[in-house]
Amino acid sequence: MAEPLRIALAGLGTVGIGVIELLETNRSTIERRAGRELQIVAINARDRSRDRGIDLSPYIWVDDMQAMAERGDVDVVLELVGGSDGPALTLARAALDAGKGFVTANKAMIAHHGLALAEQAALRGVPLKFEAAVAGGIPVVKGLREGAAANRIERIYGILNGTCNYILSEMERTGADFGDMLRAAQEKGYAEADPTFDIEGVDAAHKLAILAGIGFGARVDFDHVAATGIGEVRAADITQAESLGYVIRLVGIASLDRSEKRPTLLQRVRPCLVGRGHPLAAVAGPTNAVVAEGNFVGRLLFQGAGAGAGPTASAVVADLIDIARGDSGAPFSVPVEQLEQLAPADPGNRIGRDYIRFTVNDRPGVLAEITAAMRDAEVSIESLIQRGRDHEGGEVLVAMVTHEGPERCVAKALDLLDGSPSLTAPPLVMPILKD
Amino acid sequence: MAEPLRIALAGLGTVGIGVIELLETNRSTIERRAGRELQIVAINARDRSRDRGIDLSPYIWVDDMQAMAERGDVDVVLELVGGSDGPALTLARAALDAGKGFVTANKAMIAHHGLALAEQAALRGVPLKFEAAVAGGIPVVKGLREGAAANRIERIYGILNGTCNYILSEMERTGADFGDMLRAAQEKGYAEADPTFDIEGVDAAHKLAILAGIGFGARVDFDHVAATGIGEVRAADITQAESLGYVIRLVGIASLDRSEKRPTLLQRVRPCLVGRGHPLAAVAGPTNAVVAEGNFVGRLLFQGAGAGAGPTASAVVADLIDIARGDSGAPFSVPVEQLEQLAPADPGNRIGRDYIRFTVNDRPGVLAEITAAMRDAEVSIESLIQRGRDHEGGEVLVAMVTHEGPERCVAKALDLLDGSPSLTAPPLVMPILKD
Repeated sequence: MAEPLRIALAGLGTVGIGVIELLETNRSTIERRAGRELQIVAINARDRSRDRGIDLSPYIWVDDMQAMAERGDVDVVLELVGGSDGPALTLARAALDAGKGFVTANKAMIAHHGLALAEQAALRGVPLKFEAAVAGGIPVVKGLREGAAANRIERIYGILNGTCNYILSEMERTGADFGDMLRAAQEKGYAEADPTFDIEGVDAAHKLAILAGIGFGARVDFDHVAATGIGEVRAADITQAESLGYVIRLVGIASLDRSEKRPTLLQRVRPCLVGRGHPLAAVAGPTNAVVAEGNFVGRLLFQGAGAGAGPTASAVVADLIDIARGDSGAPFSVPVEQLEQLAPADPGNRIGRDYIRFTVNDRPGVLAEITAAMRDAEVSIESLIQRGRDHEGGEVLVAMVTHEGPERCVAKALDLLDGSPSLTAPPLVMPILKD
Repeated sequence: MAEPLRIALAGLGTVGIGVIELLETNRSTIERRAGRELQIVAINARDRSRDRGIDLSPYIWVDDMQAMAERGDVDVVLELVGGSDGPALTLARAALDAGKGFVTANKAMIAHHGLALAEQAALRGVPLKFEAAVAGGIPVVKGLREGAAANRIERIYGILNGTCNYILSEMERTGADFGDMLRAAQEKGYAEADPTFDIEGVDAAHKLAILAGIGFGARVDFDHVAATGIGEVRAADITQAESLGYVIRLVGIASLDRSEKRPTLLQRVRPCLVGRGHPLAAVAGPTNAVVAEGNFVGRLLFQGAGAGAGPTASAVVADLIDIARGDSGAPFSVPVEQLEQLAPADPGNRIGRDYIRFTVNDRPGVLAEITAAMRDAEVSIESLIQRGRDHEGGEVLVAMVTHEGPERCVAKALDLLDGSPSLTAPPLVMPILKD
């Protein structure tokens, strides 16, 4: 048996402790698969005194992360500290600089600084891996980078945030409104006390940008992911969608348009209508699912737990096993200097169908005003539902589904209606996921 | 850029031609990902004169497979000939013997001879890969071997045969009987002229045995896979199942029982009742899906096209790219000499629920006879449906679902009823898939 792979672990939250427990529980399985022992040598966290319910005495406690990264008895640094910048990034740079392999579950850091870190890793000839940064336990980074490697990927999309999926599928199941289900998610531990990053789609956007980079062999471009959260989705939208044969899911979509001379990349996180027969429609609770469409393989689906200590530890340790086995491939599937710089697509060019929901005053002429705006913007309406008053205030919901057309027409129609006293709130537009 | 990876391709059926087309179409993508060119050097097939609709002049035609395996200008031999023994096996042995890497899509050969070939590959220090042998384009061999490597896998199951899944889901959609849908599948090209291997579950059994080997780190044991096909499933069974909240799918299940001193392995391919909320219930048409349950990651689902030239070529080329990148891990996830020899489980020990369907003569006392046998065998009945006559012959269907219990009790009940003049045909037992 070869020498052990010696690991320094920074961050002893639930995932860090999960990694320690996994390496302990599955020790012999892992040794057989990795061909060598995976050995945690040094650990670090902010608060040494906290009781974490686990015996940490076998590991050397190191207070200074920089010093930990440079230890001679360490092969790989595992970062589970979190945060896109700050200590996590400092540690990453120090570790790679010291010629150590680097493994992380940090989606924010990889979305923002993954390219720079990949360059540094390439320069030092050491591995950089981040399976756990996308979709928790699901081996989708590997699935795209290696499993689907023979394909030109044309579209990647999926349910990338378990908190939002839990809330939406519970709204569907119970008929309750967003606020109540957010509180339920917080009580169950599926949502943080401050849920902003999840609810507003930022977390999903981080993951999407990373997936797009790997799938398309492109430079990660988080700044051009347009994210809309689920805070505006109402129970009534879910009911309307249901009556039309759809469910609502927060979907991150990255699609490559090669029809123009210069290919363009559209990256969006949006609540979408998903046809009931689509595999994503069956994904309920805090589960993640990713679909990749390749030009030879067709549609691949990867599904599993998107978060939690066990699943995240599983992905982290899979990376460590890969390193132990000698994997040293490019983190984003092709060498960083060969990644394509894709121009962001104009979302107005998207050809598709949309669900549009208006909240309007219940008075004569409102429907005429809305439909006239649609006509003037050349939006063709496939179906329209107006339901009686929801509330006593006289507010009425008008929901419609458009025929396929350029999204810029929908935007134009909304512009025409902007400021109209008939509307009581900004309209909500949700794309209908193409099969 | 490194030297090209030089490939000898044996077998120019649809998959072989698909591989050539894939390598041509996605050349630049593959080169960037593999870090080198994937170059077919030599080709071989039974009939040189046949027009395959593709220009084969760039490749050296070699009549003798043995000679092809030994060529000095070849790094990897790709076998797409098929058949568990015969020329495919001869080629595999010759290639590994000559120190070449070996890639195959041949599930029958790997199920029967994979261990011997893995030993030979280890001895020569060359890669042996067979992603395409299981579930077509889905990277599930990689998903188990690497993606889930940190886990002890407890159960692997899935829809492993697209032909059967097409037939069953079409029976469900149309209400038609097995025979009609088999013919429809044959017309659509989803079933072979001689569909025996698919329909009787042998093909799924090959794949299951391979998955079990990889997932459990165990010696492949195809001989102990008990396979039952879908030929006995009637339209009426599907209707009954539906009324109980289930769909019927042909499911391959491998589960490891570590409760005894010596762990045992249960491997079965059976038509099963799958709860409508389970991800496998949503898998329709010629699609494959595999679920692996790990002790940290929980439930992982991999889904996609289980057959066809494009998806299979995608998996084959993913293997070639892995080899080009320098992957040389153990084919069955752990070195072949360390694979566990698991004793086959006694299926009677399985604790679960079953659907049992009797076809009986419509006369007094039949139900009493059946329920008495159940009582005497200690099978507890959860629900029972007797529907009026299906046909004019006086044959009636009695379907029941049992409470959870040992499968040996169900077998005993059927033994008690064996030979009863009340039954017009052998009963059909379908396990209910545990969530």
